[in-house]
Amino acid sequence: MNDFAKLYSPISPSAGLDKMKRYEKFADEVAELIRTGVLAPGEKVPSVRHAGRTYGVSLSTVFQAYYLLESRGLIQARPRSGYYVREHAKKPLHELTTTHYPVDVSDVGVSELVFSVLKSLKDADTVPFGSAFPHPNLYPLARLARSLAQSAREMSGQAIMADMTEGNPDLRRQIALRYMVSGVMLPVEELVITNGAMEALNLCLQTVTRPGDLVAIEAPAFYATLQVLERLQLKAVEIPVHPREGIELDVLADCLAKLPIKACWFMSSLQNPLGATMTETKKQDLYALVEQYQTPLIEDDVYAELYFGKQPPRPIKSHDRNGLVMHCGSFSKSLAPGYRVGWVAGGRFSEQISRLKLMTTISPSVPAQAAIADYLQHGGYDRHLRKLRHALEMQQGTMLASAARHFPTSTRVTRPSGGYFLWFEFPEKVDSLKLLQLALAQGISLAPGPIFSATQRFRNCARLNHGHPWDSRSEKAMEILGRILKSF
Amino acid sequence: MNDFAKLYSPISPSAGLDKMKRYEKFADEVAELIRTGVLAPGEKVPSVRHAGRTYGVSLSTVFQAYYLLESRGLIQARPRSGYYVREHAKKPLHELTTTHYPVDVSDVGVSELVFSVLKSLKDADTVPFGSAFPHPNLYPLARLARSLAQSAREMSGQAIMADMTEGNPDLRRQIALRYMVSGVMLPVEELVITNGAMEALNLCLQTVTRPGDLVAIEAPAFYATLQVLERLQLKAVEIPVHPREGIELDVLADCLAKLPIKACWFMSSLQNPLGATMTETKKQDLYALVEQYQTPLIEDDVYAELYFGKQPPRPIKSHDRNGLVMHCGSFSKSLAPGYRVGWVAGGRFSEQISRLKLMTTISPSVPAQAAIADYLQHGGYDRHLRKLRHALEMQQGTMLASAARHFPTSTRVTRPSGGYFLWFEFPEKVDSLKLLQLALAQGISLAPGPIFSATQRFRNCARLNHGHPWDSRSEKAMEILGRILKSF
Repeated sequence: MNDFAKLYSPISPSAGLDKMKRYEKFADEVAELIRTGVLAPGEKVPSVRHAGRTYGVSLSTVFQAYYLLESRGLIQARPRSGYYVREHAKKPLHELTTTHYPVDVSDVGVSELVFSVLKSLKDADTVPFGSAFPHPNLYPLARLARSLAQSAREMSGQAIMADMTEGNPDLRRQIALRYMVSGVMLPVEELVITNGAMEALNLCLQTVTRPGDLVAIEAPAFYATLQVLERLQLKAVEIPVHPREGIELDVLADCLAKLPIKACWFMSSLQNPLGATMTETKKQDLYALVEQYQTPLIEDDVYAELYFGKQPPRPIKSHDRNGLVMHCGSFSKSLAPGYRVGWVAGGRFSEQISRLKLMTTISPSVPAQAAIADYLQHGGYDRHLRKLRHALEMQQGTMLASAARHFPTSTRVTRPSGGYFLWFEFPEKVDSLKLLQLALAQGISLAPGPIFSATQRFRNCARLNHGHPWDSRSEKAMEILGRILKSF
Repeated sequence: MNDFAKLYSPISPSAGLDKMKRYEKFADEVAELIRTGVLAPGEKVPSVRHAGRTYGVSLSTVFQAYYLLESRGLIQARPRSGYYVREHAKKPLHELTTTHYPVDVSDVGVSELVFSVLKSLKDADTVPFGSAFPHPNLYPLARLARSLAQSAREMSGQAIMADMTEGNPDLRRQIALRYMVSGVMLPVEELVITNGAMEALNLCLQTVTRPGDLVAIEAPAFYATLQVLERLQLKAVEIPVHPREGIELDVLADCLAKLPIKACWFMSSLQNPLGATMTETKKQDLYALVEQYQTPLIEDDVYAELYFGKQPPRPIKSHDRNGLVMHCGSFSKSLAPGYRVGWVAGGRFSEQISRLKLMTTISPSVPAQAAIADYLQHGGYDRHLRKLRHALEMQQGTMLASAARHFPTSTRVTRPSGGYFLWFEFPEKVDSLKLLQLALAQGISLAPGPIFSATQRFRNCARLNHGHPWDSRSEKAMEILGRILKSF
C-alpha cells in the first residue's frame, strides 16, 4: 500500500447527503494529496482501474475525477502510461520564512505612496498582477442579477425603511447560519451590516481607539490598514508574520506586556499579502493573549471562504467568550464584487459600531442586501465557492510554476492554502518600486513591498495576483518580470 | 381685472415642449397664487368659462385643472356656486419668526439624546409625525426595480470593478446634466458618488477640519449634523435661521470676523427643520462672505428637488468661482430611499474627498448606482418629481389646517415652500421632550426641538412630518396632540 493508499480513506456513505458529486469529492481528496506534497510532482497517480478497485468507487467516478483534476491543471496524462502529477512544481522556488525587523512604535505615512501606486495600476490594459481583486468573471454575476431583480420586485416600502437601520433580516439570519455551520454561535443582534468590510474595519477601529493610540498590526499588512491608521492618527506596532503560520505570538506577547496597545487588527486566515493561516491552536493562544490584556481584537476575515483545503478555517472569534473580538467579513471577494455588502460581528462593541454607522453612512444599499440574502437562500453559494476555490488553486499552481521557470532561483515565495495572492521575496538588490516602474513600462502591474509596511520595509518584495485567467500574455509577463529582476 | 387675472399670465406657446400637460401647468399656476396668498382662503376662483375666455385655454383644460386642484385639497366646489379656495387656511396659526439666542462656541453633546429619541420613533404602529422620511409609497419603487434588473443584467464584470473607484459614468453624467439645467456648469470629474448624502457630508467635514476646530451651523440644525460634529470633536457656532429666509447673514458675518471658523455647513434651500429657502440674492451674499474669509462651505442640499414653486431654487454652488463650495445631494429623498446613492460636487476638495472615501467605504453599491442612472435616462424622473411635490404640498396644507383646528392659538408655525416638515413653536410652558413621552404613550411620534440644537434649545418646539398620506388616524393624532399641548 503506497502513501496514496494509506492517506486516502474511502468515501463514507454519508457523502451523498452533501450536494457535491462523488467524483468531485474524490478529485478534491486527490488534490489535497498533491497540494500537501504526499503525491509529489512527476509521481504517477494510481491507474483508474487500480484506484477504483482499492477505494470501492466506480471506474467512471475515478475517470471523471481524473478528468477534472487534469482540467484543473494538477495532473496530466502521458500517452500509453497514465496520469502523472504535473511537473511544474518539480523545482519550485524556496518557501519564504519570516522577515524579522526590530519592533517599534511608528507613525504611519504611507498613504501618498499607496495612492500613487494604486493610480498606476488603473490602466485596464496592463497584465493585472498588481490588482487587489480576482477576475470578475469568476463570480455568478448573472445569477446575482436575477436575485437582485427578484428581491427588488418583492420588496415593500416599509421593508426598505426598516432595513436601513436594522439591516436586511434575511441577510442577517443567513450570515448567522453560516457562522453556526463553522462553529460560531452568534446572536443575530450582534451583526451589523456594512458597506463592505472596509467600512466595518473603519467603524471597529474608531470605536475602540482615539487619535494617538497604539494599534498592533501585521508586518507586512494590507496597505488599506495602514491608510486607515494614518487617517485616524493612530500609531502602528508592526508584529512580524510567519508566511505559513501567521503572527509571531511571542513578539505580540512581548508588545502587549510592554506597550499600551489599544487594539489589534489581524487577519487570522489567508492573511493579505502573505496568505498565512494560523493553526487552530495558535488562534486559541492568540485569543488567550488578548483576553489576558483585555485588548479588543479586530479580526479581518475577508478571505475566509477562499481556502483550498477540505475544512474552512475557524475564526479566532470562535474562541471569544468575552465579546472582545470584532469579526469582519464581506461578500466582495467570495460572491458579489461591487455590491458593497459586508458585516461585523461586533461582540460587546456592536451597539457602538451600529450607532457610528448610522452617523456616517446610515446604511448599505438595501436592494443589494436583499439580493445577497436571496442568493444565499436560493443561488447555490457553496457550489459557486467550490468552483471559485478550484479556479484559484489551479491558477496558483500555474503562477508558481511560471515563477520557478522565469524568476531568479534565489527568489523565495509563499505557499498559501487559499486566496489569490503570492508574495515574492526577490534577491536583496531588487528595488520593487523600481521594478514596478520598469514593469509598468512593459504593461505589467504588481504590488510593491513598501506599500505593505508602516515603515516602508519589504523593499525587495512584491505581491502578485493570480486570480485572473492564465493565458499566453500572463506567461509572457512573468518572463519579462524575470528578465527585469535579473537585471538588478 | 382682479388680482388673479393680473397675476396670471396666459400659457406661452412653448409650453407644449415640456412633457407636463397643459392643465397641470395651469393648475400649478393657480396653486402658486393660492400658496402665495394672492388668492386668499375663502375667495372665489374664476368660473371655468371666465378663466377659459381670459387666458385662452379650452374649457376642458380649466375644468381638468380645477379638478386636480380639488383633489390636491386646495380648492373646493360649492353647489351651484363654483370653486372656492379652501377654508382651512382661513384662520391659520401665526407664522414663526427667528428665535435669537446669544451666539457662542459650544461643544456638542446631543448624540445620546438623539439616539434615545430616534429609538422611541421606531415603532411601526405609531403615527409617524416624528419620521425623517416621507411615505415610501410616494416613490416609484416598482419602476426602480425594473431599472435595477435591467442594469444589473447588462453590467459587465469590468464595469463593476471600474465603477467602484470612479463611480458609474452614466450616473455622473446624468447628475452633471441636472446641474447644468439648474444653471451650474460642473466638470463631471468634480463629482464624487457616495453612500447617500450622509457619507458625503461626513467626508467633506473631515476633509476641511481637525478635532477642536470651529464649524458654523444653523440653529435649529438637522440633528445628524450635530452628531457628526460631536463624533469628530468639532465645536459648533450656531447661527440663527429665519424661518422663511434662512441664515441670519449679519450674525454669520460677525462670527466669521471674530472667530477662527474652519467650515460652514448650511442648507440653503428647504432647510431641515425650518424649511427656509434663501433668496437668490441672499445666496450670492452668503457666497461673497465665505469667499472673503476663504471659509469652505458645505452646502447640504438634499431637499433641493422638493420645492413647491415653479422654479427650482439654485444652490449657492452656482455662485462658486473658487471651488470653495462642496455641494452635497442625494436621491434618498427625491427618488430612491434605501438605495443609498448620493454625491458631492466637491470643488477644490474633490480629490481629497474621493481619497477619503476610498479609505473608508471604497464605493457605494455599484448596481444601485447603475439602476439610478438607468432610471434618470428612461424612468421619467421629472414626471415623478411633479407628482411627489404635489402630494407633499397638498399634505402640507392639510396638516396646517388641522393644526389650526386643534393646536393652541398662540402656536406659531413655519410655511415652507417645499419639503415635508413643519416646525411648530408652542406656548412657552410646553416641554417638547415631555410632549414626546405623552404623545408616544398615545401612539404618536414627533421630533422634539432640543435634538436640533447643540445647546439643547428649542424646548417648546417640535418638527412634524406631513409626508405620509393623511387619514382619519392623522387627524385624530393632531387632535390628541392639541389636547396634550393645552394641558401644559
